[in-house]
Amino acid sequence: MMDPLLPLCGKRLLTRSKYAPIYTPKCHRLKGHEGKCKEFPFLRELEKSHFRVAQKIKRDSIMTTGAAWKSDDAGPNRILRCVMLEDDLTLKRFGLNMAMLKPGIVAKLRDKAASYDDCVRVAIALTVKAYNMKSAPLASQKLATYFEATGFTLEPNSTFCEICRLPLDFRLFRNARRGKAEIETCHKDPRLHTPENVGFAHRECNIAQGPKTLDEFYSWIRGILQRAGRL
Amino acid sequence: MMDPLLPLCGKRLLTRSKYAPIYTPKCHRLKGHEGKCKEFPFLRELEKSHFRVAQKIKRDSIMTTGAAWKSDDAGPNRILRCVMLEDDLTLKRFGLNMAMLKPGIVAKLRDKAASYDDCVRVAIALTVKAYNMKSAPLASQKLATYFEATGFTLEPNSTFCEICRLPLDFRLFRNARRGKAEIETCHKDPRLHTPENVGFAHRECNIAQGPKTLDEFYSWIRGILQRAGRL
Repeated sequence: MMDPLLPLCGKRLLTRSKYAPIYTPKCHRLKGHEGKCKEFPFLRELEKSHFRVAQKIKRDSIMTTGAAWKSDDAGPNRILRCVMLEDDLTLKRFGLNMAMLKPGIVAKLRDKAASYDDCVRVAIALTVKAYNMKSAPLASQKLATYFEATGFTLEPNSTFCEICRLPLDFRLFRNARRGKAEIETCHKDPRLHTPENVGFAHRECNIAQGPKTLDEFYSWIRGILQRAGRL
Repeated sequence: MMDPLLPLCGKRLLTRSKYAPIYTPKCHRLKGHEGKCKEFPFLRELEKSHFRVAQKIKRDSIMTTGAAWKSDDAGPNRILRCVMLEDDLTLKRFGLNMAMLKPGIVAKLRDKAASYDDCVRVAIALTVKAYNMKSAPLASQKLATYFEATGFTLEPNSTFCEICRLPLDFRLFRNARRGKAEIETCHKDPRLHTPENVGFAHRECNIAQGPKTLDEFYSWIRGILQRAGRL
């Protein structure tokens, strides 16, 4: 697989984020582009047609998933994955006292750490996977060219739930229970945030997989069926 | 299976519950007992040795499981299962406006409705299952006699996770993450609250089963393994 970032502009962008000293957003338009630099040009069309889906892809790509509950030792709800690569001392300077959090929370946050570039690679991969779902909107020719240049291929109806292997329908993004979409971003290995390892899954499948790797999950449910006499 | 309540006193107890007009706790000591009536005599020993386990059995038996989040339309956190048998008009008189809740919440609450007697039958069954776990405390001879009289048998190391069929260790009750025990009460059919249908399961197994019946769950994971080429 080629590096999707190779053909991209890569110019540093200004940010008002309080993490600016340790976090540098970049332009991901094609090299030699005209006009203004943009961080997520591949999401612009989705932002117009399906704003919440675009926001979800952006959020799941560059932020850690949030704590499911709120308390002093639960840690931040969502935080930049690349910030989680920094050491405790640096984080403390940004007001994040890792020593105050429970060890389990710290481990979870550190597991979700990923470089900014990996986060952007994941964002492009997820965007293509969304367009490749059944009933997805059509990408413009310009966008199709962008994906080709970054090493991805638009191929309608080719996106499956990474866990249960059933086709995913774009319209499931709309269904939400308790504010949570029926489609979730998932990781074959929950500790790896790379394009090869990330995809979409049904919410119920993702919940069932839990913190296991997909391989561990398959072995686990195989054992269940075996002991239940259902194999 | 005999009715566990048959050999029991059954005398009505006074309650300060605001639901008193529609909820009558009873005495479940053996018929002809001496001394004071008691609602949960079979839990007294556990209350002394493992208070939280006893409380958990009582709570899971007679209350609905709580809403996982808090908002006006999320419904009550925990409520008596037998109160959920009453019609909307009656509930409104008790300050519970079902018409204000989302249809999904109402369905969930109604699914968990059960008669008071069924709740007590479940409580006895769960107590026996807890004593039958590996590393469980020993029940007194008096308590063993009580269980026999109600149709249950103490049989050490005979309690398995209802879902994955691995033996359950009593000490797992102590392990808690985010205040939630590693052992949960589970339902083979989530809509049936009867002794035959209720048991204990690992938290991760219970989460994976979700709102499915155990049969549906086994079929579902079988399909997953099939499509993933792991069968």
